[in-house]
Amino acid sequence: MRLMTSSDKPENASAAPVPTGVAAQDWAQAAAEPHYRAAVVDLLGALAYGELAAFERLAEDAKLAPTLGDKAELAKMASAEFHHFERLRNRLTEIGEDPTGAMDPFVAALDGFHRQTAPSDWLEGLVKAYVGDSIASDFYREVAARLDIDTRELVLAVLDDTGHAEFAVEKVRAAIDADPRVGGRLALWARRLMGEALSQSQRVVADRDALSTMLVGGVADGFDLAEVGRMFTRITEAHTKRMAALGLAA
Amino acid sequence: MRLMTSSDKPENASAAPVPTGVAAQDWAQAAAEPHYRAAVVDLLGALAYGELAAFERLAEDAKLAPTLGDKAELAKMASAEFHHFERLRNRLTEIGEDPTGAMDPFVAALDGFHRQTAPSDWLEGLVKAYVGDSIASDFYREVAARLDIDTRELVLAVLDDTGHAEFAVEKVRAAIDADPRVGGRLALWARRLMGEALSQSQRVVADRDALSTMLVGGVADGFDLAEVGRMFTRITEAHTKRMAALGLAA
Repeated sequence: MRLMTSSDKPENASAAPVPTGVAAQDWAQAAAEPHYRAAVVDLLGALAYGELAAFERLAEDAKLAPTLGDKAELAKMASAEFHHFERLRNRLTEIGEDPTGAMDPFVAALDGFHRQTAPSDWLEGLVKAYVGDSIASDFYREVAARLDIDTRELVLAVLDDTGHAEFAVEKVRAAIDADPRVGGRLALWARRLMGEALSQSQRVVADRDALSTMLVGGVADGFDLAEVGRMFTRITEAHTKRMAALGLAA
Repeated sequence: MRLMTSSDKPENASAAPVPTGVAAQDWAQAAAEPHYRAAVVDLLGALAYGELAAFERLAEDAKLAPTLGDKAELAKMASAEFHHFERLRNRLTEIGEDPTGAMDPFVAALDGFHRQTAPSDWLEGLVKAYVGDSIASDFYREVAARLDIDTRELVLAVLDDTGHAEFAVEKVRAAIDADPRVGGRLALWARRLMGEALSQSQRVVADRDALSTMLVGGVADGFDLAEVGRMFTRITEAHTKRMAALGLAA
């Protein structure tokens, strides 16, 4: 994952609680609790398959690139996603889990998302890369604050922005400047992406008990149902800001 | 490029001349000769676009993978090709050339090759990765021996085998063991790949004067028309051996 810049982070930095409980523990301590361990395996599995699917999608989008330079830029992003995937897979192996087993439960939802939102051109691909990964990144950052120290460090590392957001924003803004009608079409597209992302997330949360329990106040720190609501509000607000940065109405 | 193993190298190691002339010079010395310089820019451009196209093809083939583990393996190969592409692009920039301009003349031939040889399933994709890259690798190794020291070092580095040949050989042999009829189909496929590779190479050589002149005795060392014939013989023999290693009749 990638594409977060400091300016479009949701405003949870100040709202996040001072680490206590799990968030103050390392993996060895925290994982002694079987429900917490299961939730983290789910999270790493979802994130790992997300990176592998993002690799495939970006490599596919590279074919739509109008120039060799643009193609190389997309290939670079794809390759960066692959290296994130490798880190997550290696961590799963390190903690004694089968990476394939951890990823399997998330294949249907992520493949479904990508199938429902196959970009029809280069600009739709860029908007999808930017918006989709930003939303995923916001979500994982929110969750990361509630994780043990070691898992948090890994999750934040694979969400590290590698400067690709600027590339997408610059290309999309230039296209809208050149033809303002493009803006209307891409705004509709971004709304469809957000809708599909929410619908697939609900599917995952409904299916995965350990993950949902961690999200809703169970085993990790500081999340209750009201907090989940606020989290979605923060993510939606960040999305609206990003749309404005692209020159699109959310 | 990749997929060479020490056992399937063409037998040119002993036949290669002791470096003299260009092969004993560094880039700064050798590039003072404008025809040599133009030929190397062509070579690096062809190799760079070859890597970028290989990235795309492998990422595409990853979709056909029967398991998540196989998918990850193909994604890893694709990512390795991308890093080779980056090195070649950076070198072109270093020597003051526009990478896009250097790659452009080879886009049609390489895209044509990949379009004519789109694998219809996972095994065809593996055979193509193995056979196609091995032939390309043999060719570039032959040429590398005639290049200046700096260019040779770069070309050999991006041809470095990263252990993927074993992956392809193992999977293809297992498939043939499980169903011997698969062998006949894949043998036909490999012949088609070889034919298409030769036809596209001829197209490139006919189009690019500097490159052809270097290949046929002009500016680099030790290549005359007879030597080119022997080179093709060596490459064809290495191909036959690789087919045998796969369990296929060439």
